[in-house]
Amino acid sequence: MSLLVMKFGGSSVGTPERMQRVARRILERQQEGHQIVVVVSAMGDTTDDLIDQSKQLNPNPPAREMDMLLTTGEQISIALLSMTIHQLGGQAVSYTGWQAGFRTEPVHGKARITDIQADRVIRSLDEGQIVIVAGFQGMSEDGEITTFGRGGSDTTAVALAAAVQADRCEIYTDVDGVYSTDPRVVKCARKLEEISYDEMLELAHLGAAVLHPRAVEYAKHNNVCLVVRSSFTYNEGTEVKEEAVMEQGIVVRGIAFDKNVARISLLGAQDIPGILAKVFGALANNGIDVDIIVQSGVADGKADFSFSVSNNDIAKALRVIEDLRSEVPFREATSEENLVKVSIVGAGMVSHPGVAAKMFETISQLGVSIKMVSTSEIKCSCVIEAGPLNEVVRALHTAYNLDTEEQAFVGGPQDRRE
Amino acid sequence: MSLLVMKFGGSSVGTPERMQRVARRILERQQEGHQIVVVVSAMGDTTDDLIDQSKQLNPNPPAREMDMLLTTGEQISIALLSMTIHQLGGQAVSYTGWQAGFRTEPVHGKARITDIQADRVIRSLDEGQIVIVAGFQGMSEDGEITTFGRGGSDTTAVALAAAVQADRCEIYTDVDGVYSTDPRVVKCARKLEEISYDEMLELAHLGAAVLHPRAVEYAKHNNVCLVVRSSFTYNEGTEVKEEAVMEQGIVVRGIAFDKNVARISLLGAQDIPGILAKVFGALANNGIDVDIIVQSGVADGKADFSFSVSNNDIAKALRVIEDLRSEVPFREATSEENLVKVSIVGAGMVSHPGVAAKMFETISQLGVSIKMVSTSEIKCSCVIEAGPLNEVVRALHTAYNLDTEEQAFVGGPQDRRE
Repeated sequence: MSLLVMKFGGSSVGTPERMQRVARRILERQQEGHQIVVVVSAMGDTTDDLIDQSKQLNPNPPAREMDMLLTTGEQISIALLSMTIHQLGGQAVSYTGWQAGFRTEPVHGKARITDIQADRVIRSLDEGQIVIVAGFQGMSEDGEITTFGRGGSDTTAVALAAAVQADRCEIYTDVDGVYSTDPRVVKCARKLEEISYDEMLELAHLGAAVLHPRAVEYAKHNNVCLVVRSSFTYNEGTEVKEEAVMEQGIVVRGIAFDKNVARISLLGAQDIPGILAKVFGALANNGIDVDIIVQSGVADGKADFSFSVSNNDIAKALRVIEDLRSEVPFREATSEENLVKVSIVGAGMVSHPGVAAKMFETISQLGVSIKMVSTSEIKCSCVIEAGPLNEVVRALHTAYNLDTEEQAFVGGPQDRRE
Repeated sequence: MSLLVMKFGGSSVGTPERMQRVARRILERQQEGHQIVVVVSAMGDTTDDLIDQSKQLNPNPPAREMDMLLTTGEQISIALLSMTIHQLGGQAVSYTGWQAGFRTEPVHGKARITDIQADRVIRSLDEGQIVIVAGFQGMSEDGEITTFGRGGSDTTAVALAAAVQADRCEIYTDVDGVYSTDPRVVKCARKLEEISYDEMLELAHLGAAVLHPRAVEYAKHNNVCLVVRSSFTYNEGTEVKEEAVMEQGIVVRGIAFDKNVARISLLGAQDIPGILAKVFGALANNGIDVDIIVQSGVADGKADFSFSVSNNDIAKALRVIEDLRSEVPFREATSEENLVKVSIVGAGMVSHPGVAAKMFETISQLGVSIKMVSTSEIKCSCVIEAGPLNEVVRALHTAYNLDTEEQAFVGGPQDRRE
């Protein structure tokens, strides 16, 4: 008998009909001979509704009380899902995060899991129960209710899969797998049968929001076999694993993009020792995430360099830099908003020369200029203006032989709200 | 410094404005120099909404999962109330039932409290926090979430008051105290300054649903000074205590009524030994609560007797009796539905002869016939037809000198939904 973790997002259980469909799906999996642990998120808009309610009373509520409030969303889901399974003749028991043994750091809003005491879950499995666990939540050592932050239900599922040594962790979502790129942009996007943890991490970080990056990291670290599949169809889905096979003639696994990019350039900065550490240290201390950094060379003791931040951070970032002027003298700081980053990802790139060159060529053939470039062993990213993004993604998709003849399946509503 | 428990029902926190009013009220009490523990119920219709949601998925859900579901209602309340207090500049911390140390029997839907480990609450009080505890819920020894059943938030408040040795337990509701009778029936009903636990128990059991009987029992047992007062006004409220002073010239404290009464009569029953034990044992085993029992005498070895049940139990009760016919032969079982029970309550009745006689006289002067009578040391109840109930209550209220010149205050909406 194998042990399966099944994770369902909020929109998969957003209506009574959907809740019933999920319950039937779970029972089918059980009848196939699996022991089942289910992780479920808050239903539909519950989390957002609770946030709205709280904002009316306190625009800036304490994180502790926010955790107290938001964890009720998943608690409602697990109770209703368990009832639905009972109604269909199954045996199920629901557990909150603390009941399921999730211990976390004593932090609110984005606690990390420190330990999972899964004996209660295992005992219920041994009794033949379907165990339904509330996603996204745990308890600190001092008995405080904590949450993992948005997307945390994926992490709950993967961490629990590792703790109970599950054979598979299936993440049910609104698309039937991980695609070579966003099927809403490229209709002939390719569903991937397999993808490596590292590739998935790049895709997740780069904006292909099918799986939360932290969940992928957790899966990689614990070698959990992860499957992304649709809660609306019975298609096979995409397996995320250590070593993923690449089809013949294909080097790039997928194309990701991030629409929320701005560039800041520091021109004529005095090239004093530690200048980069000073600038990026100050930005980090102010909570600004910097993505790509490009230094374009030094002449006459003056350096020019550029970096990318998200659009919403640009005003703050420029203020931080202006405040540094006395320490780090520079001629001018310029900025450009509303850019996008497009990236090709593939574990095989490192052993295939010319992959990046083809990307630059494809983009320039469209008359689009590349503003920044960043590369790693498994990806190459270009920052370009926003306008031609879709055109660029489609061209790259074709250039790297990713197009299929079929039209990609896009299921129900977006399931990435939690 | 004194220690105060303040309990607010669901309608007192049913809207953002009400939540804010409650928060201000709590902060005022704190500024008067009290340490404050707050117990709060689920907001407005939350509990009923959750029940409706569950019924759509499972008309007969497991009690365990129902507890899992319903306890989220109070958890939402405590988080939002805490946030509101923070917004107004106060320091507050919310605790679920299990966090506040409520340990219960391993029963779902109506667990009894076995123990309160209040050290966490006391620690927070010592830190100057306002402690906000979710009503109606606890945890069994094996870590299961349990509830006390409806009205359980009153019990939470009283039990917590006993556990932390509070000086007072204030129950805030939609009326400004306990009245001599329902002010909706008798406009000149009298607000009582004091009432004894025993009198309050009779009034609570008899349908004057201001306080849950279990909470009153708990208060009596632990000698908790209980105050019922309005969350809408600053009036003094009613103190519920061991010995309550009675005003000069008044023997009856209040008049209660129960609108949901039916009578069953067993006529010509063979007077075999243990016949009453057989009949009422069988009814109890079938979960039927019997209130008044009257045996009207034995002649020729045949007995007639009557008893009252609630209207909804009548069909079931008649079936149970019919099933007993072979064991307990009887001539005929008759029944009468839609009756009411009206009761006078007063600890002084026992030392004042003629109190009951005045009741019978007052009722019969209205041309109303009395179908059953039951008396105890502190009360006298009559079952009558439903039609003239209001008229009877008004006449009794006048007969026992309970009328005031003022019109009774009836506050916001009914606050007895939990």
